[in-house]
Amino acid sequence: MDAAEFRRLGHALVDWIASYRETLEERPVMSTVKPGDIRARLPRSAPDQAVGLGDVVALVERDVLPGITHWSHPSFFAYFPSNSSYASVLGDLVCAGLGVQGMSWQTSPAATEIEEAVLDWVRQLVGLSAAWTGVIQDTASTATLGALICARERASGMAQTDRGLQSKAAPLVVYHSAHAHSSVEKAALLAGYGKAHLRPIEVDRAFAMRPEALAAAIVGDRAERLHPCAVVATSGTTNTTAFDPIAAIADICERHKLWLHVDAAMAGTAMVLPECRPLWEGVERADSLVFNPHKWMGPGFDLSAYYCRDPQHLIRVMGTNPAYLRTQQDGEVSNFRDWHIPLGRRFRALKLWFHLLDVGADGVRARIRRDLANAQWLAGEVAATAGWEVIAPVALQTVCIRHVVAGLDEPALTEHNLDISRQINHGGRAYLTPSVVDGRQILRVSIGSERTERRQVEALWTELQAVAAR
Amino acid sequence: MDAAEFRRLGHALVDWIASYRETLEERPVMSTVKPGDIRARLPRSAPDQAVGLGDVVALVERDVLPGITHWSHPSFFAYFPSNSSYASVLGDLVCAGLGVQGMSWQTSPAATEIEEAVLDWVRQLVGLSAAWTGVIQDTASTATLGALICARERASGMAQTDRGLQSKAAPLVVYHSAHAHSSVEKAALLAGYGKAHLRPIEVDRAFAMRPEALAAAIVGDRAERLHPCAVVATSGTTNTTAFDPIAAIADICERHKLWLHVDAAMAGTAMVLPECRPLWEGVERADSLVFNPHKWMGPGFDLSAYYCRDPQHLIRVMGTNPAYLRTQQDGEVSNFRDWHIPLGRRFRALKLWFHLLDVGADGVRARIRRDLANAQWLAGEVAATAGWEVIAPVALQTVCIRHVVAGLDEPALTEHNLDISRQINHGGRAYLTPSVVDGRQILRVSIGSERTERRQVEALWTELQAVAAR
Repeated sequence: MDAAEFRRLGHALVDWIASYRETLEERPVMSTVKPGDIRARLPRSAPDQAVGLGDVVALVERDVLPGITHWSHPSFFAYFPSNSSYASVLGDLVCAGLGVQGMSWQTSPAATEIEEAVLDWVRQLVGLSAAWTGVIQDTASTATLGALICARERASGMAQTDRGLQSKAAPLVVYHSAHAHSSVEKAALLAGYGKAHLRPIEVDRAFAMRPEALAAAIVGDRAERLHPCAVVATSGTTNTTAFDPIAAIADICERHKLWLHVDAAMAGTAMVLPECRPLWEGVERADSLVFNPHKWMGPGFDLSAYYCRDPQHLIRVMGTNPAYLRTQQDGEVSNFRDWHIPLGRRFRALKLWFHLLDVGADGVRARIRRDLANAQWLAGEVAATAGWEVIAPVALQTVCIRHVVAGLDEPALTEHNLDISRQINHGGRAYLTPSVVDGRQILRVSIGSERTERRQVEALWTELQAVAAR
Repeated sequence: MDAAEFRRLGHALVDWIASYRETLEERPVMSTVKPGDIRARLPRSAPDQAVGLGDVVALVERDVLPGITHWSHPSFFAYFPSNSSYASVLGDLVCAGLGVQGMSWQTSPAATEIEEAVLDWVRQLVGLSAAWTGVIQDTASTATLGALICARERASGMAQTDRGLQSKAAPLVVYHSAHAHSSVEKAALLAGYGKAHLRPIEVDRAFAMRPEALAAAIVGDRAERLHPCAVVATSGTTNTTAFDPIAAIADICERHKLWLHVDAAMAGTAMVLPECRPLWEGVERADSLVFNPHKWMGPGFDLSAYYCRDPQHLIRVMGTNPAYLRTQQDGEVSNFRDWHIPLGRRFRALKLWFHLLDVGADGVRARIRRDLANAQWLAGEVAATAGWEVIAPVALQTVCIRHVVAGLDEPALTEHNLDISRQINHGGRAYLTPSVVDGRQILRVSIGSERTERRQVEALWTELQAVAAR
């Protein structure tokens, strides 16, 4: 492809993306293809001769679009908001066009320094003090793995430089809410702790970790000659957006010298609103924190913000220094390759920078307030309607509901609510996530797509009632 | 930003990217800014009010470009090829525009199925058998970490479900070439093995792992009641593109039941040429393999191809199954979130697919052959020139050279060659990597940027001689 062809196809795709987004509401939210449908459209092998991309828009419409579940659809209420604003798309375009590797400062100083600047903007936006230093990672899963490895190395006196976890030292133990995201257990297992050394701590009626249960578990483990190592507190659980009480947990961590990691993957963005910050009171006393601007703030995936208080420890754990990576500026700059697991790095700060320039902090705050209001509206309607229940406090934008039919036992209610979710999702006009809370099958409505206004939430509520009534 | 503004700015940026690439040769390859220069251009905080991106091209030219080291420059000879073809840029544009999350099949079936199809194309292109299954990961560093965790779990009988590495079992040991990439040691440390349980194995005169030294180390560790667990063989080391003898290493791994992981990060792409495949003979007997199409094949970073022979083991190690991630299709489809560390996934297969359609397999092969020929030409010129040495076999596209001045001792030669690298890199007309091999300071010339023709290699060689002669 030469420059002229790139210009031609690039313009066509830019126009197509705009049209796609403008007409999103006409499409079914969830893809309706069957397993294997898309793969069957592609040849079994790469073409030997160049085929070219001459009709790239037709190619995308024909072979890709049918297999797309539209996360930017204004009636996308599943999982979590996963926005990708127009400004963010332009940032990704520049990132791909430059094609630089920001692994070391020297390999593109702008990639490092714009990331430093913009992550500091975001730090201020969510109300964190200047004691925190940020770095972009791909996902909260990866960042939490990194945090639990840092905790492991601090507790063990950098055992990785000696016998690692394979010493005779007292086993290290990790604590987390029983409602923590699955990635927390996954991270602890990948870090080598072992499931026998994980402690899911019971939650209260609002699904938040009970600090007295945490304290008791730690004391119990000490009595068993185990070595309590780290607590992962969740700010906004996946199922119900419950907030673990960070201040009380921090008290316990300080008393017992445990690493405190805060997983605020989705909810962190809400902290742009001062009125939300009491939800994570005590966060300043954590050792590490991750939240995903790529969920609710506006820039597209993947852009996870990892903040830590002791970057030198992070670098000791993650850093390498082979001859072929040394540069003249080492020692006076940040080489972000030493701040996480991967070596190579895209220039992801561009899309966050573009997004914040485009909408401003006020724009982010206004959109988050809109989503919170929509969630409160829906929760109010559900609570006021016979046969419907809101089954968890609505702290932010996630509303967990279910429909109850008198005379149905629990298995029948499960099937009934699963059936509602299937009808909604296959109906194409909205997409939500069935889940299970406290053994009860629920319908989880996550509000926060950039284009979701009150109108779409109202339509969802109308359709839920209609489906349930059938 | 509305759709009209997105169209306007998108067109402008597409045009700008084409102009940028067309005029690359006029720019200094390595950025010449000083630490802090770029950061000083950005305000200390995000704007409260929307600023907009109305003059986005001017913004990029002013605040970004001075801080860019141009990896697509035809005179980029540093590190490794990091290509990002026009077709790949378009794929990334569509990926960002769609903004989908391919974590589960249902969350965008096309993301999963096009990835399955295209990674199978790539498998065939590099001559691997159908016994291999591929998945895209971000980097070889991350993939190797995953491989060493899979190895750990197979050797320990899935200890992560019990006491992890914190049992009383015999410590697991990992073996790798003394010339393995720094990410191999990093991965083993992050996986918890501990440095005391890593064995850098000595290399032969061509810098390849000596299998008899590997066998002796394993036998020695067994005698010490340690548990040999995994070998990482490198196909194409970072410094000198040395190839560990995989067949001989596989014999040893089979005899001792060790996991064999092959790190072919840069060199894997060369296997599109049948004539290169003897270099990794025995690769079919490995358990896992990673190589980076994002280096030399054409699609932009990050697109690392991880192939394994037992995906079910991978899923056992990496999988989770919380209620909120279950879908109707589980069991009949691949949910790639269970194939690696992150949960979320971009639609990265698009850019690889677009690239392969655009150039065809013949196009990839022709470009790789061009680069190999350019490397052989340079090595021949260097070897034939008094005062210059080629210090390692040139298996592929990396040429390690140094300039020797009679009468200079080793420290002086080091300074002399470092000075050559500084003059080349600061001169702006080329960019290469100083490194150290066998204690000797070298100049490492990596050829493989998409736009690098013989002309730029000749110019580099002319300039190297001129600088050395000063």
